[in-house]
Amino acid sequence: MNRQDILVQFQALQDRICEGLQAFDPQMVWQEDQWNRPGGGGGRSRAGKEGAIWQKGGVNFSDVHGVLNEALRVQLKTKASSFQATGVSLVLHPLNPHVPIVHMNVRHFRLDNGQEWFGGGMDLTPHYVEREEASLFHRSLKTICDQFDSSWYAAFKNLADDYFYLPHREETRGVGGVFFDELGASPGANLDQAFAFVQAIGNGFLPTYLPLVERKKDWAVQQRHLDWQNMRRGRYVEFNLVHDRGTRFGLVSNGRTESILMSMPPHADWAYNHCPLDASDEADTQAQLKKGMDWLGES
Amino acid sequence: MNRQDILVQFQALQDRICEGLQAFDPQMVWQEDQWNRPGGGGGRSRAGKEGAIWQKGGVNFSDVHGVLNEALRVQLKTKASSFQATGVSLVLHPLNPHVPIVHMNVRHFRLDNGQEWFGGGMDLTPHYVEREEASLFHRSLKTICDQFDSSWYAAFKNLADDYFYLPHREETRGVGGVFFDELGASPGANLDQAFAFVQAIGNGFLPTYLPLVERKKDWAVQQRHLDWQNMRRGRYVEFNLVHDRGTRFGLVSNGRTESILMSMPPHADWAYNHCPLDASDEADTQAQLKKGMDWLGES
Repeated sequence: MNRQDILVQFQALQDRICEGLQAFDPQMVWQEDQWNRPGGGGGRSRAGKEGAIWQKGGVNFSDVHGVLNEALRVQLKTKASSFQATGVSLVLHPLNPHVPIVHMNVRHFRLDNGQEWFGGGMDLTPHYVEREEASLFHRSLKTICDQFDSSWYAAFKNLADDYFYLPHREETRGVGGVFFDELGASPGANLDQAFAFVQAIGNGFLPTYLPLVERKKDWAVQQRHLDWQNMRRGRYVEFNLVHDRGTRFGLVSNGRTESILMSMPPHADWAYNHCPLDASDEADTQAQLKKGMDWLGES
Repeated sequence: MNRQDILVQFQALQDRICEGLQAFDPQMVWQEDQWNRPGGGGGRSRAGKEGAIWQKGGVNFSDVHGVLNEALRVQLKTKASSFQATGVSLVLHPLNPHVPIVHMNVRHFRLDNGQEWFGGGMDLTPHYVEREEASLFHRSLKTICDQFDSSWYAAFKNLADDYFYLPHREETRGVGGVFFDELGASPGANLDQAFAFVQAIGNGFLPTYLPLVERKKDWAVQQRHLDWQNMRRGRYVEFNLVHDRGTRFGLVSNGRTESILMSMPPHADWAYNHCPLDASDEADTQAQLKKGMDWLGES
């Protein structure tokens, strides 16, 4: 792949997403930081806060390269000695607990042995799971995937179920979405198609997510909703710090901590052995945080 | 070592500590859960909340055994196939941001190849570092250590500096304390002495920590203190979920999640690139979260 193309497209994607978010929530305050990584490369982080819609979030571009240390070689199962990673990553934490948290990432990875591939995905973490919302989200992802390969939605939906899973809680992070890695890595694979696909995922972000925000941004909020939101945000923290490979890759590869941990929520709560009341909305959400759910629905 | 002795002493230690905490903060609500671990063993967890002094905390006893999976063998650097671990562990999160968070742990570990040892420690995480408080804490630990070996305080203080360190933040978790592992493990080592030492650490907990709480529990609290407390609690979460070997051992060995994560604070905050104001108390604390500080002082 032409490296310059990837850089240009990924930076343009970051710009378009930020413009779209700003238009939707003009109150949100953004801060841009351009940074260099001591080991090689750098990035352009954009952190937002105190919006009317989103309380905290970030849309990051980074392009880093360097030596693969032992921990990274083990994680990537490779004997290569250096890497180059370019990507856009975003997480948004809404103010209203009825509006779902969203995460999107596209990335290109290249090793010095010539191997290269694309990875990424988009997934939704509602504080309150609602079938209709999950269905709208998954149908939008399926439409994007189907333009490329009719088998991809199902395959990448399953990978998201497996990836966004907290074994120590026996629950999924949210309603999942799509997740893929090493796309275009196998010999003879179509790297151009993989690049086009990650661009479609990136460009699909605003039209997939914003309508979901629009549906619920004015829903009435009670204290119990806020309490539950902070408990669910605690689980989000647990996933990112204990399991998320991107976060752990960033931390062990001497990435920029503030950019990596931009995914953290503004607040999170923990309570010992917290159990939702029987037949409550919270219990209903808890019951639906399972792998293998069919979110497409019939509607 | 006689296994029954260890069980009896560690359970009695849990009881004494809980009684001491209850007498000091009668408002705190405690819940005891006895549990069995599917893989073998179990525990007695005691979780406290909503006290006048401590907002959340736990004092846990556990005695678990089972098969060492590959992840555990790597972590313990052993080829043994099964383990037995018995211990008491506590974390307390105070309501008043001037009162420090405390952690104490004593444990006995035995492998099926006959190797056994003790480990543990006690460390303090003030939201606001104050030299006098850190000095009282460290002098108390030195007094306990000196009864056993005049070299132990310095050695175990350095181990605590190394252990309670967040590389991705380039800061220590707090003012440290003592940390030790594999005490009594070497051939010919004095296991009885190691057992006596962990009991001294355990028994030293209340007389070391409660006077520090007494000093500050009624200090006036402003909103900025509460905000900073929640930022520091965020770092506590980062340490425990990203780095703490006990937490990660528990999670990968199918421990009881609610008992392991009892160390989580009630709330935590994250803000992008948060920097304390110049010459503020918060900046002063940040500047002192370094390895190698001499906390004994002259006073």
